[in-house]
Amino acid sequence: MSTGAASTNLKIGIVGFGNFAQFLAKTIIKQGHSLTATSRSDYSQICLNLGVSFYKDVEAFLEADNDVVMICTSILSMSEVMKPMPLHCLQRPTLFVDVLSVKEFPKNFLLQVLPEESDVLCAHPMFGPESGKNGWKDLTFKSNRSFSRLFWFAVLVLKKEEGCRMLEMSCEEHDKMAAKSQFLTHTIGRILSEMEIKSTPVNTKGFETLIQLKENTTKDSFDLYSGLFLRNRFAKQELENLELAFKKVKQKLLDRMIDVQDIDDVPLSQRVE
Amino acid sequence: MSTGAASTNLKIGIVGFGNFAQFLAKTIIKQGHSLTATSRSDYSQICLNLGVSFYKDVEAFLEADNDVVMICTSILSMSEVMKPMPLHCLQRPTLFVDVLSVKEFPKNFLLQVLPEESDVLCAHPMFGPESGKNGWKDLTFKSNRSFSRLFWFAVLVLKKEEGCRMLEMSCEEHDKMAAKSQFLTHTIGRILSEMEIKSTPVNTKGFETLIQLKENTTKDSFDLYSGLFLRNRFAKQELENLELAFKKVKQKLLDRMIDVQDIDDVPLSQRVE
Ligand SMILES: NC(=O)c1ccc[n+]([C@@H]2O[C@H](COP(=O)([O-])OP(=O)(O)OC[C@H]3O[C@@H](n4cnc5c(N)ncnc54)[C@H](OP(=O)(O)O)[C@@H]3O)[C@@H](O)[C@H]2O)c1
Ligand SMILES: NC(=O)c1ccc[n+]([C@@H]2O[C@H](COP(=O)([O-])OP(=O)(O)OC[C@H]3O[C@@H](n4cnc5c(N)ncnc54)[C@H](OP(=O)(O)O)[C@@H]3O)[C@@H](O)[C@H]2O)c1
Repeated sequence: MSTGAASTNLKIGIVGFGNFAQFLAKTIIKQGHSLTATSRSDYSQICLNLGVSFYKDVEAFLEADNDVVMICTSILSMSEVMKPMPLHCLQRPTLFVDVLSVKEFPKNFLLQVLPEESDVLCAHPMFGPESGKNGWKDLTFKSNRSFSRLFWFAVLVLKKEEGCRMLEMSCEEHDKMAAKSQFLTHTIGRILSEMEIKSTPVNTKGFETLIQLKENTTKDSFDLYSGLFLRNRFAKQELENLELAFKKVKQKLLDRMIDVQDIDDVPLSQRVE
Repeated sequence: MSTGAASTNLKIGIVGFGNFAQFLAKTIIKQGHSLTATSRSDYSQICLNLGVSFYKDVEAFLEADNDVVMICTSILSMSEVMKPMPLHCLQRPTLFVDVLSVKEFPKNFLLQVLPEESDVLCAHPMFGPESGKNGWKDLTFKSNRSFSRLFWFAVLVLKKEEGCRMLEMSCEEHDKMAAKSQFLTHTIGRILSEMEIKSTPVNTKGFETLIQLKENTTKDSFDLYSGLFLRNRFAKQELENLELAFKKVKQKLLDRMIDVQDIDDVPLSQRVE
C-alpha cells in the first residue's frame, strides 16, 4: 500500500461493477482516488463516462497495481468470481474489502482463498443507491476487520469524507442482527410486491410506508435478496419466526371470531338488561 | 337540527368515549360546538376536564337534545351498544354519524335500527390519535351518505375547519380498499409485534419504518384490529392473499437454494473456464 505524501490518493479496484459498485464509485472518484473495475458484463462505456478504467480481462485488472480491491459482486456469485482469479498476478500485498450484505460467509471464504500477505476488511455499508441517494450522512457503515492493519482504509475512504458512522462487530453478530432486521424487511417488501399492493384513495400513513418499502425493496435484485437468505445462517430461523407470527395473528383473529359469534348468537332480549 | 344564526354551533353527542372519541372531542370543542358523551366506562372526570357533559345514563344522554350523535364505539361493540338504546327518547330528528373503520356493516345496521326521521352519515376519518397528532391537514376523511341532506355537517365540522380532504364513495368500495390497505397494514404491524422486532445497531431505513409501523399499530386496540377483520367481508380474502404471497416468496427462496446447491456441487475444475 502506498505511503507518504500521496497516501490519501489510493488506487482502488472494483470487482463486480453492478448497481451498488457504480453508486460507490461516484463518491470514491469525487474523493480523488483512482478507480479500475472488472465485471462479468461489459461496463467499458459506463466506466469511460465515470473516469474509471475498465478491464474485461481479470489478469490485467489484477496487474493494475491497486492498493485496495473492493469486492462488489452479488452475494451468491462471489465465490464463483473469486475462486478462478489468478491472484498470483497481484503486484503487491493488497487490501481486499468486501461489501457483501452478509458477513460470515465472505470472511470465511476470503480468508481461505486470498494470499496470506493480503489484508481483508469485511464491511457492510448500511445504505444503498436508494437510502444513500442524498449523501451517506448518518447511515451506518458496519465494518469488520479480519485483519486489523488496514482499518484506516475504511476510516479514510468511507467514513471521514462522507460522515458515516463506523461500527465494529463480529461477522456473526452482524449476521444475527441483519437477519432480524434487513432480511426481514426485504422479505416483507417482497411479500407486498407479490401481493401487488397499490395506492388507494383511502391510504393510511402506515400503508403509505408499506408502498414505499415495497418499491425500495424491489429495486434491489432478487440475487441480493436470495443471498441474504442463503448465505446468512440466521435467516432461515427468521423466516420461520415470521411464519409462526403470521399463524399466531391469524389464530387470534379466528378465536375472536368465535367469541363474537357467541355474542351475535344470543337473542337480543337476553342481552338487553 | 338547529338553523339560523347559531347553526354553526352544534350540539354534538358522542357514544363511546374511548381513545378516538377523546381525540376528536378536543378538536370539536375548539371549534365551539358543545359536547355531551356517554360510554360503558365512567369518563365523568375526563369529561369534566375537557368541558364535556358526561351522562352515565343513556336515556338522559338521548334527551340532551343533540343535533348530531357521533358513534365512536369499537366496531365489534356497536350493535351491542346501539340495539338497546331507547331511541324514542330523542327530542328531534337527529343526524347519526358513525366513524367506524369499516363501513358496510354500520350502514346496514344503522339503517335498520335508527328511527326513519334520523339521517345517517357513514364516515371513516383516515387518521387517528397517532397520525393526526399534528393536525388533520392532508389526511382523508372518507364519508358516505346513506342519506344526503346533512352532508354539510361533515363538511362544516370536520373538513372546513381542519383542512381535511373529503372523499365520497360507496361503503362497499371503502371496505374493499380498506381491506387491501388499512387491514393489511395493521396485520403486518401485529405480525411484527408478535415477532417482538427491536431496533439494532445495523438498522436499515426500511427496518426503521417497520419498527415505527409496529409501534403505531399496537397503539390501537386489538378490538379495533379484529373489527377490521370480522366486520369487513373483504378482509378474509386479504389475509389469504398475504398467506399465499408469503408462501410464494418462501418457495422462490427454496428454489434458489436448489439452484445454488447445484452450482456449489460442481467441482471447481469444471466451473473455471
Ligand atoms: N444495493 C445495495 O443497497 C447494497 C448495499 C450494501 C451492500 N450491497 C452489496 O453489494 C453487492 C452488489 O449489490 P448490487 O446491488 O449491485 O446487486 P447484486 O445483484 O447483489 O450484484 C450485482 C453484481 O454481481 C455480479 N454478478 C451477479 N451474478 C454473477 C455471476 N454469476 N458471475 C459474475 N458476476 C455476477 C454482477 O455482475 P455484472 O453486473 O457484470 O453482470 C454485478 O456486478 C452485493 O454483495 C450486495 O449485498 C448492496
Ligand atoms: N383510533 C383510530 O385511529 C381510529 C381512526 C378512525 C376511526 N376509528 C374508529 O373509532 C372507533 C373507536 O376507536 P378507538 O380507537 O377509540 O378504540 P376501540 O377499541 O375500537 O373502541 C373503544 C370504544 O369502544 C367502547 N367499547 C368497547 N367494547 C365495548 C362493549 N362491549 N360495550 C360498550 N362499549 C364498548 C369503549 O367504551 P369504554 O371506553 O367506555 O369502555 C370505547 O369507547 C372504532 O370504531 C374505530 O374503528 C378509530
